[in-house]
Amino acid sequence: MILQLRRGLSCDTTGVNDHGLHYFDDYVPGASYECGNVTFDQASVIAFAKEFDPQPFHVDPVAAAASPYGGLIASGWHTASAVMRVLVENYLAAESSLGSPGLDEIRWPQPVRPGDTLRVRATVVEARRSLSKPDRGIVKTLIEAVNAEGQPAFRATAINFVLVRPAPGG
Amino acid sequence: MILQLRRGLSCDTTGVNDHGLHYFDDYVPGASYECGNVTFDQASVIAFAKEFDPQPFHVDPVAAAASPYGGLIASGWHTASAVMRVLVENYLAAESSLGSPGLDEIRWPQPVRPGDTLRVRATVVEARRSLSKPDRGIVKTLIEAVNAEGQPAFRATAINFVLVRPAPGG
Repeated sequence: MILQLRRGLSCDTTGVNDHGLHYFDDYVPGASYECGNVTFDQASVIAFAKEFDPQPFHVDPVAAAASPYGGLIASGWHTASAVMRVLVENYLAAESSLGSPGLDEIRWPQPVRPGDTLRVRATVVEARRSLSKPDRGIVKTLIEAVNAEGQPAFRATAINFVLVRPAPGG
Repeated sequence: MILQLRRGLSCDTTGVNDHGLHYFDDYVPGASYECGNVTFDQASVIAFAKEFDPQPFHVDPVAAAASPYGGLIASGWHTASAVMRVLVENYLAAESSLGSPGLDEIRWPQPVRPGDTLRVRATVVEARRSLSKPDRGIVKTLIEAVNAEGQPAFRATAINFVLVRPAPGG
């Protein structure tokens, strides 16, 4: 499925729609999933940054060309949000995702430039049942988004609360 | 200054516009700054989430009411991005900010609900000159966004590259 999002951002999840991830029980440490691609165009980079991160190298092509980046780059929050979209489509499940308390370490090792496509991969790092709430578990996931040159442009370790599979007939 | 952003998000930075932060030299560990407020309305919460984080409790008021959150909550990425806007206005400086390699630990200890206003505070945790690039330093900042009840809704430690003050006549 190719999702054409508002403002030119597009997610391509063709062929990666069935990981079989529905409940906590399905997230097994070590398992790694290709979750789809996301492409950034200049209009979406500028529109996001004008609203949330209006630094010259995110919103002004002329100032960006004169900056150390040598041209426009996407706000890191735009990159993170776009990667999230792919994860909602292909890693988290609407029937079990209970949200997130946060992430351990976010890194943007390479800038994302207009025209770049990032490939998003999610690897289960840890999965443990909640001690206080027996209906759910805590999943830690290494999220990596890599550009066409194979360079990582985003990396983070996310923490998610996920419902366990309901008992049959329960 | 009250910035009315697209989609109903508004930043109020009235009275907090002059921290005197222009270059790396101005960021002193221990210094803490009130950077302004940001208010979330329901339309902006839903619009952001439809684009980037379309989980039921972010986009569907009826499904959200039946979820453990008991009502719509903002995507954590929306919260982070809105906090960034306040920091760009009142903590980072266009003449010296060189971007960020990432953050150490992001937490969303309390959900952000439509109508909530967060007060953003930035505290300099560490400031050191770059060993490899003498024109800049690395600033670590504890960012906290607190709701009207005094509960923290966002907390993160950001890393920023910041130019040192140019030598006079240099």
